[in-house]
Amino acid sequence: MTESSFSHIDAAGKLRMVDVTNKRPTKRQAMARCLVVTAADVDALEPWTDGIDPLHAARVAGVHAAKRTSDLIPLCHSLNLNDVDVQLHAYAGGIEVTATVSATQRTGVEMEALVACAFAALSIMDSLQTTDPNARIDDLVLLKKEGGKSGTWGRLVENPNT
Amino acid sequence: MTESSFSHIDAAGKLRMVDVTNKRPTKRQAMARCLVVTAADVDALEPWTDGIDPLHAARVAGVHAAKRTSDLIPLCHSLNLNDVDVQLHAYAGGIEVTATVSATQRTGVEMEALVACAFAALSIMDSLQTTDPNARIDDLVLLKKEGGKSGTWGRLVENPNT
Amino acid sequence: MTESSFSHIDAAGKLRMVDVTNKRPTKRQAMARCLVVTAADVDALEPWTDGIDPLHAARVAGVHAAKRTSDLIPLCHSLNLNDVDVQLHAYAGGIEVTATVSATQRTGVEMEALVACAFAALSIMDSLQTTDPNARIDDLVLLKKEGGKSGTWGRLVENPNT
Amino acid sequence: MTESSFSHIDAAGKLRMVDVTNKRPTKRQAMARCLVVTAADVDALEPWTDGIDPLHAARVAGVHAAKRTSDLIPLCHSLNLNDVDVQLHAYAGGIEVTATVSATQRTGVEMEALVACAFAALSIMDSLQTTDPNARIDDLVLLKKEGGKSGTWGRLVENPNT
Amino acid sequence: MTESSFSHIDAAGKLRMVDVTNKRPTKRQAMARCLVVTAADVDALEPWTDGIDPLHAARVAGVHAAKRTSDLIPLCHSLNLNDVDVQLHAYAGGIEVTATVSATQRTGVEMEALVACAFAALSIMDSLQTTDPNARIDDLVLLKKEGGKSGTWGRLVENPNT
Amino acid sequence: MTESSFSHIDAAGKLRMVDVTNKRPTKRQAMARCLVVTAADVDALEPWTDGIDPLHAARVAGVHAAKRTSDLIPLCHSLNLNDVDVQLHAYAGGIEVTATVSATQRTGVEMEALVACAFAALSIMDSLQTTDPNARIDDLVLLKKEGGKSGTWGRLVENPNT
Repeated sequence: MTESSFSHIDAAGKLRMVDVTNKRPTKRQAMARCLVVTAADVDALEPWTDGIDPLHAARVAGVHAAKRTSDLIPLCHSLNLNDVDVQLHAYAGGIEVTATVSATQRTGVEMEALVACAFAALSIMDSLQTTDPNARIDDLVLLKKEGGKSGTWGRLVENPNT
Repeated sequence: MTESSFSHIDAAGKLRMVDVTNKRPTKRQAMARCLVVTAADVDALEPWTDGIDPLHAARVAGVHAAKRTSDLIPLCHSLNLNDVDVQLHAYAGGIEVTATVSATQRTGVEMEALVACAFAALSIMDSLQTTDPNARIDDLVLLKKEGGKSGTWGRLVENPNT
Repeated sequence: MTESSFSHIDAAGKLRMVDVTNKRPTKRQAMARCLVVTAADVDALEPWTDGIDPLHAARVAGVHAAKRTSDLIPLCHSLNLNDVDVQLHAYAGGIEVTATVSATQRTGVEMEALVACAFAALSIMDSLQTTDPNARIDDLVLLKKEGGKSGTWGRLVENPNT
Repeated sequence: MTESSFSHIDAAGKLRMVDVTNKRPTKRQAMARCLVVTAADVDALEPWTDGIDPLHAARVAGVHAAKRTSDLIPLCHSLNLNDVDVQLHAYAGGIEVTATVSATQRTGVEMEALVACAFAALSIMDSLQTTDPNARIDDLVLLKKEGGKSGTWGRLVENPNT
Repeated sequence: MTESSFSHIDAAGKLRMVDVTNKRPTKRQAMARCLVVTAADVDALEPWTDGIDPLHAARVAGVHAAKRTSDLIPLCHSLNLNDVDVQLHAYAGGIEVTATVSATQRTGVEMEALVACAFAALSIMDSLQTTDPNARIDDLVLLKKEGGKSGTWGRLVENPNT
Repeated sequence: MTESSFSHIDAAGKLRMVDVTNKRPTKRQAMARCLVVTAADVDALEPWTDGIDPLHAARVAGVHAAKRTSDLIPLCHSLNLNDVDVQLHAYAGGIEVTATVSATQRTGVEMEALVACAFAALSIMDSLQTTDPNARIDDLVLLKKEGGKSGTWGRLVENPNT
């Protein structure tokens, strides 16, 4: 890649944060998604027998990590978020994680949505370590974003559930 | 899944940390890997013209996040790490991220290796936001682990470079 | 309790953050209080002989923790605070901690005031560990809150100093 | 109090950390407890209809905060914990929180156990904000500690459930 | 010094945060500077042979630390920053670090600029530990600030490059 | 500088952490120092009239920051510290900050001592912002280190008080 492909590299190849001083705070939203693909003998089981939901920690991890995105992605702005919504859905081959993040800020929340997904998924991986060490996280993508100067962007998704 | 598939859920369906009091500190290592899959017009470019390496921030992000794993994965133990090594390799369709983490502790460093990969990859996604919003993180897996009571475990990888 | 008693549980029993996108930033204030109840042979002593104030660390701990509330209460919003004021008063049976927190935000600062009190008090407990391991924190309550759609709320306190 | 009542104040009234260089790492455990006292119309309700456990976030908050004690109590040592176990029990007037923390370290984990209790309880307070703003945290105490030079210490508790 | 020399000490000698409730959010900027003074046999070397820039980690450290200023300076407000720009320039006797921080907030970003400089410089010191343990950080100062009620302030600098 | 001058740059110019797997945990200590140089009309004042010590927050900030060094210096190892001792001494032209850090670890605590000094000094700068915006931090250096394979190292200091 040339240096211009990277928004955090200036013309001299030096790392920089993006200056948002002259942007206005507006409502912004971003949605990301990933899959935790599990082994057949895990995913064949009934997910929530007896009303027990084993994925509570994953939801908390996703929300918590989203709030700390700027702490972890070195050149990200710190933002106050209006909402982080993490949804987990079991399907035949694993668990789909979807995260929607909203804020009224000078910059978008795409990274926050991606981080929420990644950490909800990593928390599930943590729980599965003994049973299914071959589990993997796949297809972590931005699904859409709204707000800001660049407006609405949506990924073309052919089959959103896998 | 039944509750027993999850190492952080006790028999009553309640979240818990795993007690490692009676484990001995031993040398442990884990290696994880993922891919950042980029668009054709990004990956076709020459990656490091003029000695500029745009991936420095990604390496730092990976090392930094690994050290903070227990801060982010709610039920993970906090560990002092001996080493975090993040390697980034450009290939035709994107960038491969590999992370190797070592520690002398009572519990393994699998999550630390996965977190290092995830954050190096997320930092790359952050840099690519404008150029390639369709970039995705794929195939985040544990490649191998060594040390501890359960000994060495290795994933069967047919084609490690994609 | 039914699930509807908990503001962070949705109708399906899943954990969620409260979406504040459609709230306006307004001035908000909250005041909380607790007691550190100490043993007779501790509280009988003169508190600040020679101008030494042993409670400086407790004040700093309270202010510092209030700023990090969203880091610690998983489903809390991160907020920029305008002011955190921690007051400590020695009385016959211990030390009363009062914290007043102000912000201009989309959501209230009740949790920030409670966290400030709790951590100032825990810092005092830390200092007292050797001398008075039976010390306890009692009566940690929200005293009042102002601002926001729900307006002013005040706790009925019969004897605020105990 | 005189300055000697406080373990973090030196003879000159200045704040200090306690030097543990010459202590040996040994197994240490501490147990703390507190109550979240709720209003009658909250506690009269059935707590876990339909298998829904609204207290998952509280357990996670307690474990997570315990790991970060040294980040919050300014003069506390940072420690790697072997285990944090947070138990929540509903009773007629509220919820009892118990936390047991274990580590193999040069200093005790009393503060970690107190912090785990405080944050599990504060997380419950957060959930109850709308329904029961008069809820309070009471009787946050150290129940016992084991290990280290000072050996086992136990609080005399007449009625542990309230 | 008298207590009135310190903005975080009230009339009674107690620590406090400064209340900014009645200040308006306005554009604010601050610029700080320091020097990392290195040994002759280090600074005589050519700095970036072959396009390698060894100071990437220092830039990231400066930006990252600036975002976390309120986490580290106990009585500082937490602020969302619009921009952090860290510049590093090699000169005959070492490396000059300059940091410019911008925000639209109720309080200034002087501390954020000083923290960015300090941490970029400390990260360089970390890299130099083996080669030049005598390296030192000198002349860490605020160069100028703009915005807020007190308006523009500039330090008289006779020789800005050393 | 050539890349070999920097311990965190490998032969290919890439950032890396130093692997300490094969080092043994031993007692290590480091001592650092800096000066906060203040204006004449500040330093002429009597420092601690009426027993008020305005520097409590600075001591806490130094201890607290030392514990979080690895969080801030991206390629530093996280360590459990045995002791952090921050001393502040007023002299005619300002305040001298000295920090001594001890640990039983696989790597030294030089950076922790430097960070403790820097943050105690930055906290003082924060307090002086209104009264003396020209205050500066000078001469932040490592004074000595002990322990580890490289043994004791001491800086030649001609005039330690300025």
